[in-house]
Amino acid sequence: MGKISRRTMLGATGGLIAGGLLKTQADALTVAPETAGPQVAQADPTKILGAPTSQLGERAPGEQPRRVMGNPAVAASSRTPLEQLRGIITPADLHFERHHAGVPAIDPDRYELLIHGMVDRPMTFSLADLKRFPAESRIGFVECSGNGGAAYSRNAAQDRSPSQIDGLLSTSEWTGVALSTLLREVGLSSDATWLLAEGGDAAVMSRSIPVEKALDDAMIAYGQNGEAIRPAQGYPARLHLPGWEGNAQVKWIRRLEASDRPSMTREETSKYTDPLADGTARQFSLVMDAKSTITFPTFPYQLPDTGWWEIRGLAWSGRGRITRVDITTDGGNTWVPAQLQDTVLSKCATRFRHIWNWDGDPALLMSRATDETGYVQPDLETLMAARGPGTSYHYNSIRPWRVESDGRVFFGPRDGA
Amino acid sequence: MGKISRRTMLGATGGLIAGGLLKTQADALTVAPETAGPQVAQADPTKILGAPTSQLGERAPGEQPRRVMGNPAVAASSRTPLEQLRGIITPADLHFERHHAGVPAIDPDRYELLIHGMVDRPMTFSLADLKRFPAESRIGFVECSGNGGAAYSRNAAQDRSPSQIDGLLSTSEWTGVALSTLLREVGLSSDATWLLAEGGDAAVMSRSIPVEKALDDAMIAYGQNGEAIRPAQGYPARLHLPGWEGNAQVKWIRRLEASDRPSMTREETSKYTDPLADGTARQFSLVMDAKSTITFPTFPYQLPDTGWWEIRGLAWSGRGRITRVDITTDGGNTWVPAQLQDTVLSKCATRFRHIWNWDGDPALLMSRATDETGYVQPDLETLMAARGPGTSYHYNSIRPWRVESDGRVFFGPRDGA
Repeated sequence: MGKISRRTMLGATGGLIAGGLLKTQADALTVAPETAGPQVAQADPTKILGAPTSQLGERAPGEQPRRVMGNPAVAASSRTPLEQLRGIITPADLHFERHHAGVPAIDPDRYELLIHGMVDRPMTFSLADLKRFPAESRIGFVECSGNGGAAYSRNAAQDRSPSQIDGLLSTSEWTGVALSTLLREVGLSSDATWLLAEGGDAAVMSRSIPVEKALDDAMIAYGQNGEAIRPAQGYPARLHLPGWEGNAQVKWIRRLEASDRPSMTREETSKYTDPLADGTARQFSLVMDAKSTITFPTFPYQLPDTGWWEIRGLAWSGRGRITRVDITTDGGNTWVPAQLQDTVLSKCATRFRHIWNWDGDPALLMSRATDETGYVQPDLETLMAARGPGTSYHYNSIRPWRVESDGRVFFGPRDGA
Repeated sequence: MGKISRRTMLGATGGLIAGGLLKTQADALTVAPETAGPQVAQADPTKILGAPTSQLGERAPGEQPRRVMGNPAVAASSRTPLEQLRGIITPADLHFERHHAGVPAIDPDRYELLIHGMVDRPMTFSLADLKRFPAESRIGFVECSGNGGAAYSRNAAQDRSPSQIDGLLSTSEWTGVALSTLLREVGLSSDATWLLAEGGDAAVMSRSIPVEKALDDAMIAYGQNGEAIRPAQGYPARLHLPGWEGNAQVKWIRRLEASDRPSMTREETSKYTDPLADGTARQFSLVMDAKSTITFPTFPYQLPDTGWWEIRGLAWSGRGRITRVDITTDGGNTWVPAQLQDTVLSKCATRFRHIWNWDGDPALLMSRATDETGYVQPDLETLMAARGPGTSYHYNSIRPWRVESDGRVFFGPRDGA
């Protein structure tokens, strides 16, 4: 395993002896049951009775991940600290935020979801109603359509971390009722082809959703990682559209109107479309294409020494499972398949890893995701040729990370000189 | 869908009109960026700018799940509120606790894991060392070996909730380094058959682990649901033994000693064995056999009306995947297969559900889990016949929940008269 540090064993730790002293020492301590949670770190924690049980666990004092904030005066988003996390699940309090008029405070007892329009029986559903239907769960990502915008430039800023570029991505176990169940309940007309989904926030966020998706795997979600969905993610209920852009997964959902045409809301005409160089636009480009990014080593990390390092990252696709991630450490001359790390699920963030022996020379690291449809993540030039410079969404090009000879890592293929 | 309540639609909600008023109203508001988090619930949240982004999300004011505490003067455990949760993931701050001398406060910079004994190269590993090895993740349950003790009686108390009976069960995505990787690094002797695993808490919790398990799927875990493992679950690192009893999954692990025999610690001689009626004992009964429990409807819930209700619960097995859960609503005369709810993983909690039309008569609900080895969860009489009355662990018998004619639900097959 190369440069993993190895220290000489200094002898027995004396742990069993300390254990023998426990009873006396513990008896001498006064422990207040209310003062739960981590204490000040002890030189020898075996010599002092630890903290009692508590109603709610806390993080270790030195482990305090936070969302990455924009300028609060203008930003309406906060980002998941991707490079600080392991595995695929995002703790709910670190799930990214993106809202257009703040996080509304909705009384769950007054909450109602109205389904009307081209249906046999217009109905409203209380939160209790929604929870009484058969439940389903799925582990999947939610990603803002504009995620990765900082990477969509030939001269992108280099002092950006993965979370600053791609942190509008989070993964949760979502639980709720299948939208198809509710649509059967109201008697959706066979002529209906679209649903207008409307949020109960002050932006009254509204998007048109194809009925085909609504009847496939769409969900009215009220659960997130086992508990009630958090206010910033749509409490008490949101639309979850596995693999589709976040903006269409309307949070705080209060209304679904069945129709035979899209409603052409602001969010799908002036926003959330992809204008092309020829004057046309990709509209209703709702599926998030396969993407990946390395999360280690990346800015602002500096590799302390040469030798074996594990390149780690995340790959995800709105079309299904990630089947392959290739890694290059030489700027694209050679690519080798990374290992995909359990748990690998459809339309879900997937961890990859690749062990790399850094020789101390400058290196250009990239990852390239392939999904089960055979779609391959494009490079920046290919994506720019297809989309042109005027787009603001769906930035799924390959992300390059440059390791300099001093071990510092920067975003982008070129040095700053 | 029967009795799901249906209310008449009263007309358009006026949401788009309210949206048109947004800009003026929002401009008039003064929003302090520091005052993030949920506000007081609004009668019409579309009329007021919501809360700004925040570094750490909060739960909704009305959604404040807590661990179920024992008497803090004597208890060294707290329980996951199973009946309040959806899906399979347990939020880290609601993961059950069980410790024998409190939660130690360990300085991660001074943390070391020693591996010695029958190895070629005794070594210590810092936390940074552990994180430099190839990582792996898996979603799986951890369960205290004594979980369910409140159910192991023909006269069990009836005013018990699922969490009070089975709340020493939680499910997380665990991330860490495969123990097999570390054992290759130190050069484990081919004659070694056991490892003594020792914790760095004041109990110096010690258990003997078969090398076969250590080389199979054991992990030194430092991550839990994406972030650093919480202090109460073993920060900075614990042993994770998928599907095995929690006590053997030594938290705050500081030492592994390879040997050719078990160490016969207190926790595997006087404790965590299963004395049998014939005077012998099941020892090293480490695998948690298949189990299930209904989580809804259960005490203290009272069904408000007859009609369609979804029976929901959790099933899990330390031997692999849950392949089947059968449900009875008539005390065992007829059993029907429940639906297993995605995501179904090996050695992981699995959700099941079954839609039931309650006619208002008293009913006795039970669930019976089967795993991929063909093992079937036994009833209480069968388990008692096999284990006798003197055991304190591995209570996996079928849990009966009794619905009375007034809709109240109690644990156990018999009424209190």
